[in-house]
Amino acid sequence: MFKLGNFLTLTTFGESHGIAYGGILNNFPAGLEIDYEEIQHQLDRRKPGQSSIVTQRKESDKVQFLSGIFEGKSTGTSIGFLVPNENQKSKDYDHISEYYRPSHADFTYDKKFGVRDFRGGGKSSARETLNWVIAGSLAKQLLPKEIKINAYVSSVGDIFCEKPYQDLDFSKIEDNDVRCPDAETAERMISKIKEIKKEGNTIGGTITCVIQNVPVGIGEPVFGKLQAELAKAMMNINAAKGFEYGSGFCGAKMKGSDHNDIFNEDGTTISNLSGGIQGGISNGMDIYFRVAFKPVATILRPQNSINKDGEKVVVEGKGRHDPCVLPRAVPIVENLAAFVLTDLYLIDKLRKI
Amino acid sequence: MFKLGNFLTLTTFGESHGIAYGGILNNFPAGLEIDYEEIQHQLDRRKPGQSSIVTQRKESDKVQFLSGIFEGKSTGTSIGFLVPNENQKSKDYDHISEYYRPSHADFTYDKKFGVRDFRGGGKSSARETLNWVIAGSLAKQLLPKEIKINAYVSSVGDIFCEKPYQDLDFSKIEDNDVRCPDAETAERMISKIKEIKKEGNTIGGTITCVIQNVPVGIGEPVFGKLQAELAKAMMNINAAKGFEYGSGFCGAKMKGSDHNDIFNEDGTTISNLSGGIQGGISNGMDIYFRVAFKPVATILRPQNSINKDGEKVVVEGKGRHDPCVLPRAVPIVENLAAFVLTDLYLIDKLRKI
Amino acid sequence: MFKLGNFLTLTTFGESHGIAYGGILNNFPAGLEIDYEEIQHQLDRRKPGQSSIVTQRKESDKVQFLSGIFEGKSTGTSIGFLVPNENQKSKDYDHISEYYRPSHADFTYDKKFGVRDFRGGGKSSARETLNWVIAGSLAKQLLPKEIKINAYVSSVGDIFCEKPYQDLDFSKIEDNDVRCPDAETAERMISKIKEIKKEGNTIGGTITCVIQNVPVGIGEPVFGKLQAELAKAMMNINAAKGFEYGSGFCGAKMKGSDHNDIFNEDGTTISNLSGGIQGGISNGMDIYFRVAFKPVATILRPQNSINKDGEKVVVEGKGRHDPCVLPRAVPIVENLAAFVLTDLYLIDKLRKI
Amino acid sequence: MFKLGNFLTLTTFGESHGIAYGGILNNFPAGLEIDYEEIQHQLDRRKPGQSSIVTQRKESDKVQFLSGIFEGKSTGTSIGFLVPNENQKSKDYDHISEYYRPSHADFTYDKKFGVRDFRGGGKSSARETLNWVIAGSLAKQLLPKEIKINAYVSSVGDIFCEKPYQDLDFSKIEDNDVRCPDAETAERMISKIKEIKKEGNTIGGTITCVIQNVPVGIGEPVFGKLQAELAKAMMNINAAKGFEYGSGFCGAKMKGSDHNDIFNEDGTTISNLSGGIQGGISNGMDIYFRVAFKPVATILRPQNSINKDGEKVVVEGKGRHDPCVLPRAVPIVENLAAFVLTDLYLIDKLRKI
Repeated sequence: MFKLGNFLTLTTFGESHGIAYGGILNNFPAGLEIDYEEIQHQLDRRKPGQSSIVTQRKESDKVQFLSGIFEGKSTGTSIGFLVPNENQKSKDYDHISEYYRPSHADFTYDKKFGVRDFRGGGKSSARETLNWVIAGSLAKQLLPKEIKINAYVSSVGDIFCEKPYQDLDFSKIEDNDVRCPDAETAERMISKIKEIKKEGNTIGGTITCVIQNVPVGIGEPVFGKLQAELAKAMMNINAAKGFEYGSGFCGAKMKGSDHNDIFNEDGTTISNLSGGIQGGISNGMDIYFRVAFKPVATILRPQNSINKDGEKVVVEGKGRHDPCVLPRAVPIVENLAAFVLTDLYLIDKLRKI
Repeated sequence: MFKLGNFLTLTTFGESHGIAYGGILNNFPAGLEIDYEEIQHQLDRRKPGQSSIVTQRKESDKVQFLSGIFEGKSTGTSIGFLVPNENQKSKDYDHISEYYRPSHADFTYDKKFGVRDFRGGGKSSARETLNWVIAGSLAKQLLPKEIKINAYVSSVGDIFCEKPYQDLDFSKIEDNDVRCPDAETAERMISKIKEIKKEGNTIGGTITCVIQNVPVGIGEPVFGKLQAELAKAMMNINAAKGFEYGSGFCGAKMKGSDHNDIFNEDGTTISNLSGGIQGGISNGMDIYFRVAFKPVATILRPQNSINKDGEKVVVEGKGRHDPCVLPRAVPIVENLAAFVLTDLYLIDKLRKI
Repeated sequence: MFKLGNFLTLTTFGESHGIAYGGILNNFPAGLEIDYEEIQHQLDRRKPGQSSIVTQRKESDKVQFLSGIFEGKSTGTSIGFLVPNENQKSKDYDHISEYYRPSHADFTYDKKFGVRDFRGGGKSSARETLNWVIAGSLAKQLLPKEIKINAYVSSVGDIFCEKPYQDLDFSKIEDNDVRCPDAETAERMISKIKEIKKEGNTIGGTITCVIQNVPVGIGEPVFGKLQAELAKAMMNINAAKGFEYGSGFCGAKMKGSDHNDIFNEDGTTISNLSGGIQGGISNGMDIYFRVAFKPVATILRPQNSINKDGEKVVVEGKGRHDPCVLPRAVPIVENLAAFVLTDLYLIDKLRKI
Repeated sequence: MFKLGNFLTLTTFGESHGIAYGGILNNFPAGLEIDYEEIQHQLDRRKPGQSSIVTQRKESDKVQFLSGIFEGKSTGTSIGFLVPNENQKSKDYDHISEYYRPSHADFTYDKKFGVRDFRGGGKSSARETLNWVIAGSLAKQLLPKEIKINAYVSSVGDIFCEKPYQDLDFSKIEDNDVRCPDAETAERMISKIKEIKKEGNTIGGTITCVIQNVPVGIGEPVFGKLQAELAKAMMNINAAKGFEYGSGFCGAKMKGSDHNDIFNEDGTTISNLSGGIQGGISNGMDIYFRVAFKPVATILRPQNSINKDGEKVVVEGKGRHDPCVLPRAVPIVENLAAFVLTDLYLIDKLRKI
């Protein structure tokens, strides 16, 4: 499996404490002037150690492009890329070779494959998402410039950003460490995360993503609906527990007469409970969705668990971990969304003769 | 695109008022004694006209298998199937050839493809889901018998089934028209739907699905996580607006110390906020997820809208429509989940040498 | 697997003596005015009973389109089609349920799947190729009109059409029953086939296919080379034993200085040993290839064989069989080539930004 | 596109004078003890500079595995690998940036993509085949040990190895530089190649590949026939012009009564014109096929050609090139065949419940 996209495809490799992460992008069109800085900028937004409320691991996370680009332009052939792993302290993980951490993938990988690279979570590490950020930020460069994709942290624990996205200034997302554009809420979220960190605990939250100026027609009927492709991509993020778009779970409480979006004469709609997608296809209105993230499973506290032989052990997270993944997940959500959109955007180009 | 599954695959065709629906299942293993009655039983659960709270259209929805089965057994070759359309009253839809119904796919299909089969919603009709019920109920027969997949209506509008699924008796799901196993809640849901129907209105709701006795190891790392494949399948259902599994959106409010599932000595876990999946792979605990459905867009009331030329019109649903899709969506959710699970179950068989 | 094409895809179903053959075409663009007569014309060229040198079975082979077309135009959604089986004399095949015909697929299907529809060869019957003719003749309608695809019988047994294709008049291919445009050679081929038929025997041959006026740029580097996609498609035809393009096996005897195609100033080449493809991509010159077909395995003579229990039996073909598949294989080769070309033609449209 | 395999898949990247070649293997089962030496051995057989009759370029061609292997065993997750490019003398190729070499891919890549990495042929270089050797030699390790895959040079120009493969001792393939197990023929082939090299010319030839002890049942009906998958893989090799298996093009001259393979009582066949495959599925007999290779296009002699502006130029190959690709193509054919076989072998495991 291990493939993202239907026409524009990404295959990836890498484990937390292996030699490198990397991937191959296929069917990337020729002639794009690559904006390397933008890609590195997106990687830097995902990077560990960027602020006091994320893990203090240090990784430079520099991407090397190995093929498919010549004199700064895409050549239409497969693009290979690589990110060497640097800050591997495998020793930190020797203690987990023999036992299973609660709510991690140690147990399931071991049972499924019989062999497991336990160092830093191995294949199940969220470090894989840097491959997605690279691919997504590259793919996004194929989209019309007017399409804007902005994600932000809309809740941390029970602190919610109450303002609707329309009342937020997306240019302020990067103004604070938690990536919530509402300064006052951001401050409360940051305090919360610091408090949680002090406790050696972790906390969950949600990210809202808004995609604007999408042309009408992106998405395919039946099994390639835009919302389904977005949901699949998002639900592959390691800590994601839920996805909703448009009216989402709230829409499930509503009546048709309240939920229907009435057309203006220009084809836009007065309300947008549809979330910019009707019948799986973009209708030109804002696309917006929300992703729920559970709290990070690694906590710096003793927990009861078992080892490979089913014997009771006490485990305790050590080292440098994220008390809250949300700030670093913002660029992951944005760039994954960009990838999904670009894949369907390219496919849509062939829809009419 | 139009493909469900990664190894076991389903491609489909059909429009609401075309000649027939149908599909092709590939890579279905040989030697299965087909239980035709079970397939028809699942189709009957999805069928229109089955009770007073669903659409009163009449379709016999009888499936014909055209290939891949010989003397009652699967032959390992592609399985083609067909469901003729019967109760097509295309005349009912002449009025919508020229204008766009609010929150339907009329507008987006027209803009995307330039050509649109407007009769009964054409390709965007949820009648497509009968293909999925057939494929899913066939696929399920490949799974170990002890695996149980049960879905039920867990909310209609603001009426929620408050009991956790563990306190429900799944054998009672079919005891009432709304498919909620809690008799008292079911009664209130049914009253609500009848009231809504009388108003010519529609209402949304949620379905909860529980999969039990799944062996450890189903699901793939990175891009084939079990939850992501389930999310994708569910979000392709026409009215679905959200998906969550395990702790879901509630989990996003929690701390790690509360959210982690502590192991028992036998590898089961005390709590199950993970929802039976860790690292994208089943861990042997119950898998449970929830899908949000918006209210049906067709209401039997006048609504403002526009026609193809962007001129204002008033539209009003006619004919026989579902006031609430939830009761008929239960078998869709169950059988789609069965398909996804079977696909990943077959793939898992190849994971160890 | 059972899929043809990379973007434009065909999945199929059907067995010789089942209810019907059929298939689903996905990603077919919207807005094409379908030329049904052309499709039926191609089917008629493949049909049994069309002349005295092919099988005398009678099948009307009428295709029904079930979806994806509205008011004569493709809608951009999946196209389902069906061809009912009619002239099934399953009784003819009762004698082969228990034993294995030499050089047929009876033995391998039985061993692979354990279950086998033995009637008329079941799944291994070349009747499957009518699905390909339908799909190919539909796909061809998406290509620029100036592209011409012509196949003809270039040898039967040791009778070869000695003229190079450039000296042949393709408009004469349909002038005789064997589909060789050289009248004199055709006559000798026909005599040969009649003689072979009288003996209750069968004979092999080759088909040459020429594709003209293909734009430069069709085909993908590395694993989607035009010649490789053509080879794959052709080698899936039931009796195909070999494929060569351009200089083919003769080219393997040559020196580079003789084999290289020197450019004219307009980018065409003086010679065309490359066969219109360089680096897997069309160069605008004629594409030509040759496919070898073995003699039909069913002969109307007694042959030694074995039954399921490994006991010796004598088998003898009965009923109506082709003494030579070549005449009916001509439209199969042409339409398969059309399908492959169209798939890569659509993909090429996305290759530059 | 750029994908090899249906379940076990390989995606690749790399250009002749880029930083590195590499690839990703997906769905590789867990628990295989990797034999690294065997992989490097296969790479060394493909390596430039290994004898006096191949190119004298020097590349160490050492593969690095970057993921998917832990403590010497496959982990069931994606395997990434890399081969750095070393001996890049891009200067050698400056002269070809502006003009098109005859029978190379310069012209078609330029027209298709608009951008072209001209150095050493860029993406169209046969150096890509080292990715296939790595993937194939790794895949082969998943097959039962008794399966033997042997390829050898069966002709160079008009010098043919006249003995049938049954009379050859495959253990002698590596005894000489040209990889023909018949010592006397090998000597003549080597002389021929040396003579051709002295002329600054190149020469074509054929490779025969024999696969022994394959279990019955490998290969899929319809679009996944074993011979079709082999043909596709082989025809993707850069210089391949033709593919035939079993009786091949000779079979096209035969009668059914001579061509049919009569069964022995144990299910083996007396003759094997089928080439070990019936109905697309292995029958347990030897699988054998032949691939035709054209002469290398780069010759060390002046040739007329054109530049990008369509002006006449004279081009002349410089540097170190293969006078004949056949010796180095032997491991490519073998390992590609191994990959195809392993992919279908894994898929076959799921064919019966």
